[in-house]
Amino acid sequence: MERASLVFPAAEFEGRLTRLKQRMEQDTLDALLLTAPSDIFYVTGFLTRFWESPARPWFVIVPASGEPVAVIPSIGRDLMGKTWITDIRTWDAPDPFDDGVTLLSQTLSEVTPQGARIGVPMGLETHLRMPLADFHKVGTQIGTRRFVDATQTVQRVREIKTEREIEKIETACSIAGRAFDQVPAFATQGQPLDSVFRRFQIALLEQGADWVSYTAGGAGPDGYGDVISPAPAVPLQKGDILMLDTGAVKDGYFCDFDRNYSVGPISGEAKRVHEALWLATEHVIETLTVGMRACDVHRLLVGSLEKSGVTAGGGRLGHGLGVTLTEWPSFTPLDSTELVAGMVLTLEPGAMVREGTYIVHEENILLTEYGVRLLSPRAPFDMIEV
Amino acid sequence: MERASLVFPAAEFEGRLTRLKQRMEQDTLDALLLTAPSDIFYVTGFLTRFWESPARPWFVIVPASGEPVAVIPSIGRDLMGKTWITDIRTWDAPDPFDDGVTLLSQTLSEVTPQGARIGVPMGLETHLRMPLADFHKVGTQIGTRRFVDATQTVQRVREIKTEREIEKIETACSIAGRAFDQVPAFATQGQPLDSVFRRFQIALLEQGADWVSYTAGGAGPDGYGDVISPAPAVPLQKGDILMLDTGAVKDGYFCDFDRNYSVGPISGEAKRVHEALWLATEHVIETLTVGMRACDVHRLLVGSLEKSGVTAGGGRLGHGLGVTLTEWPSFTPLDSTELVAGMVLTLEPGAMVREGTYIVHEENILLTEYGVRLLSPRAPFDMIEV
Repeated sequence: MERASLVFPAAEFEGRLTRLKQRMEQDTLDALLLTAPSDIFYVTGFLTRFWESPARPWFVIVPASGEPVAVIPSIGRDLMGKTWITDIRTWDAPDPFDDGVTLLSQTLSEVTPQGARIGVPMGLETHLRMPLADFHKVGTQIGTRRFVDATQTVQRVREIKTEREIEKIETACSIAGRAFDQVPAFATQGQPLDSVFRRFQIALLEQGADWVSYTAGGAGPDGYGDVISPAPAVPLQKGDILMLDTGAVKDGYFCDFDRNYSVGPISGEAKRVHEALWLATEHVIETLTVGMRACDVHRLLVGSLEKSGVTAGGGRLGHGLGVTLTEWPSFTPLDSTELVAGMVLTLEPGAMVREGTYIVHEENILLTEYGVRLLSPRAPFDMIEV
Repeated sequence: MERASLVFPAAEFEGRLTRLKQRMEQDTLDALLLTAPSDIFYVTGFLTRFWESPARPWFVIVPASGEPVAVIPSIGRDLMGKTWITDIRTWDAPDPFDDGVTLLSQTLSEVTPQGARIGVPMGLETHLRMPLADFHKVGTQIGTRRFVDATQTVQRVREIKTEREIEKIETACSIAGRAFDQVPAFATQGQPLDSVFRRFQIALLEQGADWVSYTAGGAGPDGYGDVISPAPAVPLQKGDILMLDTGAVKDGYFCDFDRNYSVGPISGEAKRVHEALWLATEHVIETLTVGMRACDVHRLLVGSLEKSGVTAGGGRLGHGLGVTLTEWPSFTPLDSTELVAGMVLTLEPGAMVREGTYIVHEENILLTEYGVRLLSPRAPFDMIEV
């Protein structure tokens, strides 16, 4: 069982470290302090579901020079020891009097000079995964070093996926694709939606997902409204459109796409909207290029939907994807993030069938120098009937 | 499908609000600002897997007088509208220029007076689930109001479970109990551990789990070391002890217990340790009373193990349980939290078979005025052979 948790060879992480350090130099950072599961997995390869327990904080420091240092609860020593990280410092957590604060402060003080700028992701799509009071305490124990925002530093590196990462996401997409193929076998008329959600999760596991971090969906006549609620025990009825959406995980990487199914023959209205969504997605797949901005994708999708004579749903119409279910950028009119080669993105246009009833379509793509490569198996143009 | 997301009647949440407000008065808080999924679910009943996306922050304000106010992304309006919360204010998230900051600041300013003490959980086992930079921005937009730590306020209320909560946890425990009963059918010699983990998750879903937020475990000759790693594709071998541990979720409530299985006949050493763990657990079940402290449970477990002549594993030997996989208190020598009636707890003693090889045993219990009530189906005294 040795080193079984190593998702990638050390070379993958050495490359990431090099790119992070280049960006840190550009942002004049003396170190990064990472606390989020995704950032820590990204730098170290430390993959565990143990994050589900909020009891303990975990820290990884990336100094401007030298190797990353893991400052973690002792329960994680074995697993971190299987990664490429060699400098691992532990304490017995949870400790109500000093839950890693002193050890973290000492380590930061050791690997950075006085006056250092220590980058912590503090911006959009980030959280500090440690008690806020402890973060403040660390701030008082590190002399003239200070914490500055490192959101850009981390995001501009993480958003460009390596070949190995793309392969993992593609594998997660294949797993979900095969699970979606099985939906007609169990999502039949009369089947309660909560049971359909369970069966879908089972199908994802049967097809090779390590775990299923996210399932969502909805069902209703010609479409659905809310798509973030747990599934109720309401039976599927003739005329319903069923949507299932998943973030299945393989080796720490997510897919995030959906499929729609019509229970019995689809109505003309739903068919028209679904086709418009398919075409809008196709339009972006055909026209998206490096150098466009996130807001351009929103514009392209809304423009295509309008051309088809349907009304785009509100909110963001897609986003980044990788070691979390959703990553930056967001396909909204407000996000001007530049799209670069190596980004893995979801195209997620939604459109209104009538007031309060929507259909949402989603695919996962890779942006390359030569255009778009699909990572999810393309949804059929005609909605599948169950 | 209306109101399908309501896990409890409004009376449940009214009771919680009353108790929170009593404690807020004691702690002289003018409001609570909650950002964590567990705290928000606790106050509102807002249950969704959408938290898996780190893209958007969500806020619930509990003023000292008046009803709670939800300040949330517009994508959550429908689902929050199905809960008992009526004051729901939304913005279109994610907004890179103002992701709820102004709306949150305005709302805080409206529901609290100048100089107000606004409680935010900042202590052990808490995180602030919003961008840190935005939290600082809010601090500059609310006049002389200031944020103070509210960890005690929230934890002293949440740790006392209501009858309805206990019922939910017991249901989750029953689901896991039935899934554990099926393990001998698929965890056979030669079966790779990653496949066993998948089959176990499938069994949990088949038995009625809404989703499976946590599975862990290990396998090895007479025991295991690391129990937080993803499962490797290593086949189970004769002489292995297999442990599976789960946090399966039903209606937003977790179970958290494990079971051990011997692959073929158990060795004398492993049998001795497993019996000692069973007896240590039994000792606490028989002797634990209201008024003891968390550290007393640690002492009782370690004492019993020593009496059986085995060495206790390090770390905490159990913890609280409820709307997250693990809650405070922690059964360590350092945690002096008083144990009160209504606490749901895990007893999780581990002991060494030999250097680097452990067995861990876990049950879920309710502490009442009259002693302990088991919530998980008790593990058999003799380890099950597969």
